[in-house]
Amino acid sequence: MALSTHARLDDDHERQAVHEQLLTDRVVASFEQATDPRLKEVMQALVRHLHAFIRDVRLSESEWRTAIEFLTAAGHITDDKRQEFILLSDVLGASMQTITIANPSVGNATESTVFGPFFLENSPEIPLGGDLAGGARGTPCWFSGRVTDTDGLPVHGARIEAWECDEDGFYDVQYGDDRMAARAHLFTDENGEYRFWGLTPVPYPIPHDGPVGKMLDAVGRSPVRAAHVHFMVSADGLRTLVTHIFSQDDPQIALGDSVFGVKDSLIKEFVHHDAGEATPDGRAVGDRSWDSVRFDIVLAAEDA
Amino acid sequence: MALSTHARLDDDHERQAVHEQLLTDRVVASFEQATDPRLKEVMQALVRHLHAFIRDVRLSESEWRTAIEFLTAAGHITDDKRQEFILLSDVLGASMQTITIANPSVGNATESTVFGPFFLENSPEIPLGGDLAGGARGTPCWFSGRVTDTDGLPVHGARIEAWECDEDGFYDVQYGDDRMAARAHLFTDENGEYRFWGLTPVPYPIPHDGPVGKMLDAVGRSPVRAAHVHFMVSADGLRTLVTHIFSQDDPQIALGDSVFGVKDSLIKEFVHHDAGEATPDGRAVGDRSWDSVRFDIVLAAEDA
Ligand SMILES: [Fe+2]
Ligand SMILES: [Fe+2]
Repeated sequence: MALSTHARLDDDHERQAVHEQLLTDRVVASFEQATDPRLKEVMQALVRHLHAFIRDVRLSESEWRTAIEFLTAAGHITDDKRQEFILLSDVLGASMQTITIANPSVGNATESTVFGPFFLENSPEIPLGGDLAGGARGTPCWFSGRVTDTDGLPVHGARIEAWECDEDGFYDVQYGDDRMAARAHLFTDENGEYRFWGLTPVPYPIPHDGPVGKMLDAVGRSPVRAAHVHFMVSADGLRTLVTHIFSQDDPQIALGDSVFGVKDSLIKEFVHHDAGEATPDGRAVGDRSWDSVRFDIVLAAEDA
Repeated sequence: MALSTHARLDDDHERQAVHEQLLTDRVVASFEQATDPRLKEVMQALVRHLHAFIRDVRLSESEWRTAIEFLTAAGHITDDKRQEFILLSDVLGASMQTITIANPSVGNATESTVFGPFFLENSPEIPLGGDLAGGARGTPCWFSGRVTDTDGLPVHGARIEAWECDEDGFYDVQYGDDRMAARAHLFTDENGEYRFWGLTPVPYPIPHDGPVGKMLDAVGRSPVRAAHVHFMVSADGLRTLVTHIFSQDDPQIALGDSVFGVKDSLIKEFVHHDAGEATPDGRAVGDRSWDSVRFDIVLAAEDA
């Protein structure tokens, strides 16, 4: 009796596994007629991985309903100014993985990281040594470095675009007025060098009052991003670089960047200078301390 | 020179693979502090499978943007009456896979399939031999069968709920008035037997004027569901069965059901009867032909 019960259970398990695999195979086959070969490849792979996930975790019907409700709520909070699906992709590391694949590691070229939602076209141009802050508050920070190609040759006229939040953790666009601050672009000199004043970066949370924030809360994760400054660097014949630099002093790096943007090579030494210490260009920063950081940038060839 | 170039490329590829895996590992580790062990398991598995998908297909940044736009559009068409995320889950076979897992194959028990969006509480009760059509148009069809447990013992008083579309392919709820038609419930007699008049099922398309319809179109898939009648059967101490029956005459079964609900064991023989042939209960169906189908139902034990 016990033996035949076991035999029946084994049969049931085997038949169940066959049913599940047969279903996955049928769904994959349903995309066989797609005329766009890339679309077919992507959809068939999506089905295989989605079904493998459902089968691996033995997803329950109530968990499936929770997932549907999550996506529905994400859809309803998303509008022109808020993109919950991008946040979701960010906190699952999917954005960073896509960027990692699109910008493969090439020799000694500077590594990429997430673009983020706060870039604006038409930032003001500043001269070499100019101030990016544009009225935004924060600790003054002197940024300098050299842009070269992977052979070490300086790149003259490379366009450097930089943007960051203020000391309260907000980008200009988050204030809802028309201010443009803490963003600018400038061009390297004939030695590939650049220098400008900006702000020492501070950590800030991604928007966390929606379903993604609720999910982070449920799993005990922080919505805070490690302190960073965004850079986009472009020059003729070289691959455009989208990246950040992070500060080695930021405890959030050890705690974890909420969108997984940190790469070891992008963590830089921000040097602290006491109030009164002479600045590189002689600028008076009043009675406050200031920082400085060097960020040398290596651009890969466009076809690398 | 060629050799050292190859060596450099190998190094680059290796470093790239390390970066991608390291990123996945970091995202998985970020869920390590979740206090709900099941939530942790599901999220970590989701991350592993999502990253494996992105890495397998080498997802491009523009493909990623297309995916974000698709989810955004699905979110915006979804409201109280339209659920595009469920449609998406359906056409990717994710709904059917979840149901297959939640209702594992048990011995000779009748198999489950998708619930669908057209069930209503409070359907009218009809007597044995009654008519479910309630004014909906279609070919009259005589449904009969016996409900038993897996030992073959008849189940007296099992509740059978059935619902289907009319001959135009629409459920009552899709007309936007208050009609209730082509749905009813009844109870088995002391021999576990049931019988009722309904309609011969016809194929109908799932809603396909949104992003899911556009996707099906792009991959050359039809939105049409194979003709079916929904059944939900429940009885004390037995597992509630949600299923359909399909018709062996329906060419859509070979073409493919758009939500993958068909299982071989659920395809039944609908017998065609010419106009004038005597009906099982002597009911006059006028000068039209009619059909009949036998559907014997085996319910698993609740704890199977
Ligand atoms: Fe940022
Ligand atoms: Fe249906």
